[in-house]
Amino acid sequence: MADYWIAPSILSADFARLGEEVDNVLEAGADIVHFDVMDNHYVPNLTIGPMVCKALRKHGVKAPIDVHLMVKPVDQLIGDFAEAGASYITFHPDASIHVDRSLQMIRDAGCKAGLVLNPAVGPDVLKYVIDKLDMILLMSVNPGFGGQSFIPSTLDKVREVRALIDASGRDIRLEVDGGISAKNIADIAAAGADTFVAGSAIFNQDDYSAVIDGMRTQLASV
Amino acid sequence: MADYWIAPSILSADFARLGEEVDNVLEAGADIVHFDVMDNHYVPNLTIGPMVCKALRKHGVKAPIDVHLMVKPVDQLIGDFAEAGASYITFHPDASIHVDRSLQMIRDAGCKAGLVLNPAVGPDVLKYVIDKLDMILLMSVNPGFGGQSFIPSTLDKVREVRALIDASGRDIRLEVDGGISAKNIADIAAAGADTFVAGSAIFNQDDYSAVIDGMRTQLASV
Amino acid sequence: MADYWIAPSILSADFARLGEEVDNVLEAGADIVHFDVMDNHYVPNLTIGPMVCKALRKHGVKAPIDVHLMVKPVDQLIGDFAEAGASYITFHPDASIHVDRSLQMIRDAGCKAGLVLNPAVGPDVLKYVIDKLDMILLMSVNPGFGGQSFIPSTLDKVREVRALIDASGRDIRLEVDGGISAKNIADIAAAGADTFVAGSAIFNQDDYSAVIDGMRTQLASV
Amino acid sequence: MADYWIAPSILSADFARLGEEVDNVLEAGADIVHFDVMDNHYVPNLTIGPMVCKALRKHGVKAPIDVHLMVKPVDQLIGDFAEAGASYITFHPDASIHVDRSLQMIRDAGCKAGLVLNPAVGPDVLKYVIDKLDMILLMSVNPGFGGQSFIPSTLDKVREVRALIDASGRDIRLEVDGGISAKNIADIAAAGADTFVAGSAIFNQDDYSAVIDGMRTQLASV
Amino acid sequence: MADYWIAPSILSADFARLGEEVDNVLEAGADIVHFDVMDNHYVPNLTIGPMVCKALRKHGVKAPIDVHLMVKPVDQLIGDFAEAGASYITFHPDASIHVDRSLQMIRDAGCKAGLVLNPAVGPDVLKYVIDKLDMILLMSVNPGFGGQSFIPSTLDKVREVRALIDASGRDIRLEVDGGISAKNIADIAAAGADTFVAGSAIFNQDDYSAVIDGMRTQLASV
Amino acid sequence: MADYWIAPSILSADFARLGEEVDNVLEAGADIVHFDVMDNHYVPNLTIGPMVCKALRKHGVKAPIDVHLMVKPVDQLIGDFAEAGASYITFHPDASIHVDRSLQMIRDAGCKAGLVLNPAVGPDVLKYVIDKLDMILLMSVNPGFGGQSFIPSTLDKVREVRALIDASGRDIRLEVDGGISAKNIADIAAAGADTFVAGSAIFNQDDYSAVIDGMRTQLASV
Repeated sequence: MADYWIAPSILSADFARLGEEVDNVLEAGADIVHFDVMDNHYVPNLTIGPMVCKALRKHGVKAPIDVHLMVKPVDQLIGDFAEAGASYITFHPDASIHVDRSLQMIRDAGCKAGLVLNPAVGPDVLKYVIDKLDMILLMSVNPGFGGQSFIPSTLDKVREVRALIDASGRDIRLEVDGGISAKNIADIAAAGADTFVAGSAIFNQDDYSAVIDGMRTQLASV
Repeated sequence: MADYWIAPSILSADFARLGEEVDNVLEAGADIVHFDVMDNHYVPNLTIGPMVCKALRKHGVKAPIDVHLMVKPVDQLIGDFAEAGASYITFHPDASIHVDRSLQMIRDAGCKAGLVLNPAVGPDVLKYVIDKLDMILLMSVNPGFGGQSFIPSTLDKVREVRALIDASGRDIRLEVDGGISAKNIADIAAAGADTFVAGSAIFNQDDYSAVIDGMRTQLASV
Repeated sequence: MADYWIAPSILSADFARLGEEVDNVLEAGADIVHFDVMDNHYVPNLTIGPMVCKALRKHGVKAPIDVHLMVKPVDQLIGDFAEAGASYITFHPDASIHVDRSLQMIRDAGCKAGLVLNPAVGPDVLKYVIDKLDMILLMSVNPGFGGQSFIPSTLDKVREVRALIDASGRDIRLEVDGGISAKNIADIAAAGADTFVAGSAIFNQDDYSAVIDGMRTQLASV
Repeated sequence: MADYWIAPSILSADFARLGEEVDNVLEAGADIVHFDVMDNHYVPNLTIGPMVCKALRKHGVKAPIDVHLMVKPVDQLIGDFAEAGASYITFHPDASIHVDRSLQMIRDAGCKAGLVLNPAVGPDVLKYVIDKLDMILLMSVNPGFGGQSFIPSTLDKVREVRALIDASGRDIRLEVDGGISAKNIADIAAAGADTFVAGSAIFNQDDYSAVIDGMRTQLASV
Repeated sequence: MADYWIAPSILSADFARLGEEVDNVLEAGADIVHFDVMDNHYVPNLTIGPMVCKALRKHGVKAPIDVHLMVKPVDQLIGDFAEAGASYITFHPDASIHVDRSLQMIRDAGCKAGLVLNPAVGPDVLKYVIDKLDMILLMSVNPGFGGQSFIPSTLDKVREVRALIDASGRDIRLEVDGGISAKNIADIAAAGADTFVAGSAIFNQDDYSAVIDGMRTQLASV
Repeated sequence: MADYWIAPSILSADFARLGEEVDNVLEAGADIVHFDVMDNHYVPNLTIGPMVCKALRKHGVKAPIDVHLMVKPVDQLIGDFAEAGASYITFHPDASIHVDRSLQMIRDAGCKAGLVLNPAVGPDVLKYVIDKLDMILLMSVNPGFGGQSFIPSTLDKVREVRALIDASGRDIRLEVDGGISAKNIADIAAAGADTFVAGSAIFNQDDYSAVIDGMRTQLASV
């Protein structure tokens, strides 16, 4: 069985007691904390910035914090989040003119670097920077908009990118975000993903542990 | 004695337990909650968005929430914050081509409307929309940058805007934000302000009550 | 009695037979054709461009065409509309970094030049380019949005700008646009305006002549 | 023989009597009305917007209206054109960050959706959204600039995209726009296109019927 | 007689031997070197950047270098030019959202700070930052466009700003740029300016000394 | 042996005596002059514009001037540089919406045209405009940032693009820029490049001739 990670998106947590929420979901078995940053320009919504990340570290969160930048431009926030305690920082290649440079900035700041592909974006760009990637995140919904379900054609892209990672021989996480639940997580894992973002599927339930365990049960069957 | 309001900026609160922080500062005597929204475009920082405002309302906060938009453009976030429970929504006139329209949008959404002037911006624009204003916020530091102290020439602008409000005969709050503490709050009130934003001056102290009481003591002497 | 002009906005005309509509409204007594250009950037709507202006000239329209640019930037469209047969070209000062230059471009292209002020914009800019203006247009609604009524405080601005024009001793038209009908046209004229834009007030009626005559009757009483 | 469509671009029609022009060209045998929208940002020209589309529907046009958005951003105008009676709405993938979402918006609004590729843009993006496409439009000139002739290398791209459509097994129109006349229409059809935009080639002639018949004669030989 | 400064604009010098040109014009009696920076965004031209400034310092230029930023945004180039050896850095208030902050950045970097007003821009903004200004530059042509002559109404603005400076009691240079020659320099000085930019008027002549002496003769008569 | 070109980047030359520097480096054996244009928008730096190019031509430079536009947008500067005497003009495809058109503009102006690919950009775009290219420039560092070394994976891209050029049968220069010295020039040539940009590697040495000869010796061994 692969080393699967469950990554709860704190966008669905209770922001009035975020430290407690994160503690609880980690205790319930989550592997990393997924942190969605929107700037009302790359996507039509504004969420949370570096100060909130810093507060989680100060609160005592030790788990990796996986920052997904849905912002444009990206370079200043890369520096801000690195300083605020981010572990992973991923961004969209269409949000930076100098993708290679932005990836290098993330690593120079001591973080792990990744790229995120929107549903309509092909993996071509990955080939030219594969040696600077620690994570690839495939969006299975359109980021920044609510009420969407998993886009089925994502599975083909997962397979395509899995092949690309395997061919490179590198240690790169393959993460999927959008509409994931216990019902489809096994299929997504079977296609080649190893890291699974889930927001409302976890935080809208009373028992986080039960949800995460349910996902792990499914993953065990892959 | 005028009806003075102390408005703690939650940007200096602990984001890991924000509901509790807001409860505490209100219990300590604060009048309204000041909510600083930055989008990394109007200012070089990204803070918190509508979801966090909504969480505070869901948490039970009943006090007015005073949302200061340091964003460009403003119209979409006006709608989002109105829906998230904002009481006041203020924005910068240089962040909207259609200032009159944006003010009207705020009121149409059931909120109180205001404009914010950066240190170098004169009050000329206020004259043409004075009948659509419930609040005028004067920045006494440059928003979005840290480590600044109160700009002394703000006092002249407070006097200029106070005269403008009084001449209009309207009920408009005159708020000041940046570098305010018990040391200078009386001078600012004497110049004509009635609403005082304070961030680290309050939240960086152990006893919020003591700080706010200290401010009120000063205000009582105006 | 002043030399009053009625300027029907063709935005309310039937675009399927625009030449005929313009012929009819001119025959009904209109003085100039008001042509509203929106680019979906300066305002949230896109209307009609230079080709439509050119088609009206080719159709045989001899009356002045008064092009109001609600676009940003303005310089390229100034050239395009001058070539397409515009008589007046007006733009918003906040849509051009080089207002003096853009005004000069209009005149160099053989057209009459003007500036437009949104409801919240004061007349300060007019003072520095007064010698390059043939028209000043004051918006009495927010351009680009539907369903608005005349903003009453416009009357004060009309008086302020009328004084400025008179003090200059120059021949500058003072136009008002938004929510004008026979009911308020006399008040607007009394405040100092001499050119009146009307869209749906004219084109939504069967008898254009009756509407325009009604406006002229009101103007005769000023 | 394939189901070929002739799509006259009304950009070359007489805008002073557009309803009549469209009636005439449809009576002359055109299949759909091609409607070119330019916003002076995505291309250096501004043409016509939703109001003109709405006027055509009100005038009685029943044929499909095929709206080609040469605008950036696209989302607001998608809604406006859907409401104005558009049948097809196509946009450029480089004009929207969220291509998958914009396509879905078009379908959710009850229209058929498509993407347009500029001469230098490859078809890679089509693969990831092929299940959301009803039309693919290949530009055989650069949009927004006048006086250009058909770019010969377009034929290769037509073949490439035809293969992609056939492999998908889906019902997707393959449209070509720019420099098409009776002289080259058969070659373009032979390469795999089924929908042909023509502007001045039709409207600059006295007898629309003769031009369209001439094109059909050529198509019959493919 | 006031302390008048002649400021040759190196935009008219020979860029193939810029060090020698600057040496010559200083030897001919120029007081400071005027350095025009254009970025093809604030103005439609691109000129020279920090590297050229640095090269002049390395070449041995000791005179003040007066950098006029016709760029938007301004903050990064402020830092770059300060490091490259600029003495004065001036920018346009409409090119920075945070004018007060940008002025402070210039001074914090050890340079003298100033604002520049385009022909259509009034001096209102100066009042609110007067204590952070070492120079005010009034444009008497539109920057970034060639072949213009001195705009006469500039003289009124010079008088208006001179009064503002005198009222402040501060030591602020009042510079004018555009169309200045020996013919009008005395009038401009009489209106209150003390620093005079001249480009082609100097560098297009063989004898720089004669031109500058001619200007000084005129100034002596003020 | 292929027809190799050494292209010194004048960004590392002494801007105080640029004509002399260019003369010297050409006399030392350089084939063309590489001219780096940055606008502080496409890259975070501003360098030199058309006036400097024109000065070099006026100074007597006869060698080809190879202008690399690191600017966005590109069209206006294409015209300006063509008029200023540029021989080659290259730009980044992600800096122009209308790549095919911009290439055609360069050729119409009498210059040779090229595209530049940043490290993370794949060669896909080249296929669709290969018949309009005279040069392809591959960046082996991220443009606009200092202190970088040659990115090794560039060699694979050189091979990929060389194959594409050879397959086209066209006469297209393949240039590489960034971190090139005598140590790696042979490897880059072996991969398929024929034009080599070098800046500090040449201009930071006393004897330009020795450096260039050293490079040629290496190239002779390929």
